[in-house]
Amino acid sequence: MRDLAIDIGNTGTKYGIFEEGALVEQGYFEGQDQLPPALQSQTFESAIVASVGAGAESIKARLSVAGKLLELTPQAALPVINRYKTPQTLGADRIAAAVGANYLFPGRNCLVFDAGTCITHDFVDAQGQYQGGGIAPGLRMKFRALHTFTERLPLVQQIDENFPLTGQSTQESILSGVLAGSVAELNGFIQAYTERAADLVVILCGGDAGFFEKKLKGRIFVIPELVLIGLHRILTYNA
Amino acid sequence: MRDLAIDIGNTGTKYGIFEEGALVEQGYFEGQDQLPPALQSQTFESAIVASVGAGAESIKARLSVAGKLLELTPQAALPVINRYKTPQTLGADRIAAAVGANYLFPGRNCLVFDAGTCITHDFVDAQGQYQGGGIAPGLRMKFRALHTFTERLPLVQQIDENFPLTGQSTQESILSGVLAGSVAELNGFIQAYTERAADLVVILCGGDAGFFEKKLKGRIFVIPELVLIGLHRILTYNA
Repeated sequence: MRDLAIDIGNTGTKYGIFEEGALVEQGYFEGQDQLPPALQSQTFESAIVASVGAGAESIKARLSVAGKLLELTPQAALPVINRYKTPQTLGADRIAAAVGANYLFPGRNCLVFDAGTCITHDFVDAQGQYQGGGIAPGLRMKFRALHTFTERLPLVQQIDENFPLTGQSTQESILSGVLAGSVAELNGFIQAYTERAADLVVILCGGDAGFFEKKLKGRIFVIPELVLIGLHRILTYNA
Repeated sequence: MRDLAIDIGNTGTKYGIFEEGALVEQGYFEGQDQLPPALQSQTFESAIVASVGAGAESIKARLSVAGKLLELTPQAALPVINRYKTPQTLGADRIAAAVGANYLFPGRNCLVFDAGTCITHDFVDAQGQYQGGGIAPGLRMKFRALHTFTERLPLVQQIDENFPLTGQSTQESILSGVLAGSVAELNGFIQAYTERAADLVVILCGGDAGFFEKKLKGRIFVIPELVLIGLHRILTYNA
């Protein structure tokens, strides 16, 4: 029993190979429509594909799957109750992260941050109800916006973990505003949900999870493969 | 004694007319190189022009000034001690806001937020030393970035003061991520500086000051004309 989960994001694609329900291999590749040769040469028992952007047709066409090939659409059955008002516009990665959190921490209130191109937060409660969340620009998107939408600001490329609170150059000022600002954003959401939900579990995933892990207050679970785990859980649930 | 202060920003230009040191009239116009006819037809005793973007030559050429016409450049003398390491790249609006704060609250530690195209924060200490700060994307810049730099997110146009913590549609999710996130950013900076500087004065200016005023914790001074007041103070200091 060898399954594949594919998460097509805004800047690249992640995949995970599961054997008997356990994630045994994962990887990342640039782009949104090509499959690495190593994945094309295998036949999987079943597979799930989710995309936040353009369709997943091109990647689905390259997969060799013996059994079920599921695309995560708004119509797919979910192992959580979806309280979102517009499920047809809910990002596949967001609901997958929520499903993954609820699978790993059943019966707990979970707040999930996915810190990638965007920083999303998603809340799934102790009753297994996905309640929604928020979408904000990610770290690199903020750097890019400051450069693109102003006349004089340079493009900062590097996430410097030793950013100052008080920047004394343009580079430092942008690091302070973007990095200290984003840490404060996440701390603010953690505080707001802690006030509303008992015994909250906070989970971080996404490419910038490592940055935030060291800076946030309180106990944080970093689970980089959360979306893949959630996708595989949805695949199993639909089997 | 009738003076003019002009602040050319990323999206528009503000002006203030001062009589005997008091701000008696202020206004805003779109664009960065034209002067409203009402300003072109007056002769001022002295004037100061500051720009965060392209040069101020075109506006300066349209002004009628009997005495001093000062452009705020990195070489201008300042009534605060500038501890910034790269004064040649320091935004004119940021140093003007710091000067304005120090002028209105002498001998106090001041944290200034200018919430416009960007949200800048600037710290000037009780000894009149400008220490620097941070630059982050403003509210509309965040909306624009989410739309521009992702495939599927719409452009949110409206700042809704009744944004939810937990968004249940794409629109609500973006409002939560951007608006609740930005409020948390500013609260985080206020907390961080409060821990470092005794008896901190927090001042808000910029187009979105009104939004933040209602949402931030603690006592906040909203002074929309802070940059103009700072510019006029610099003009007087250079007289």
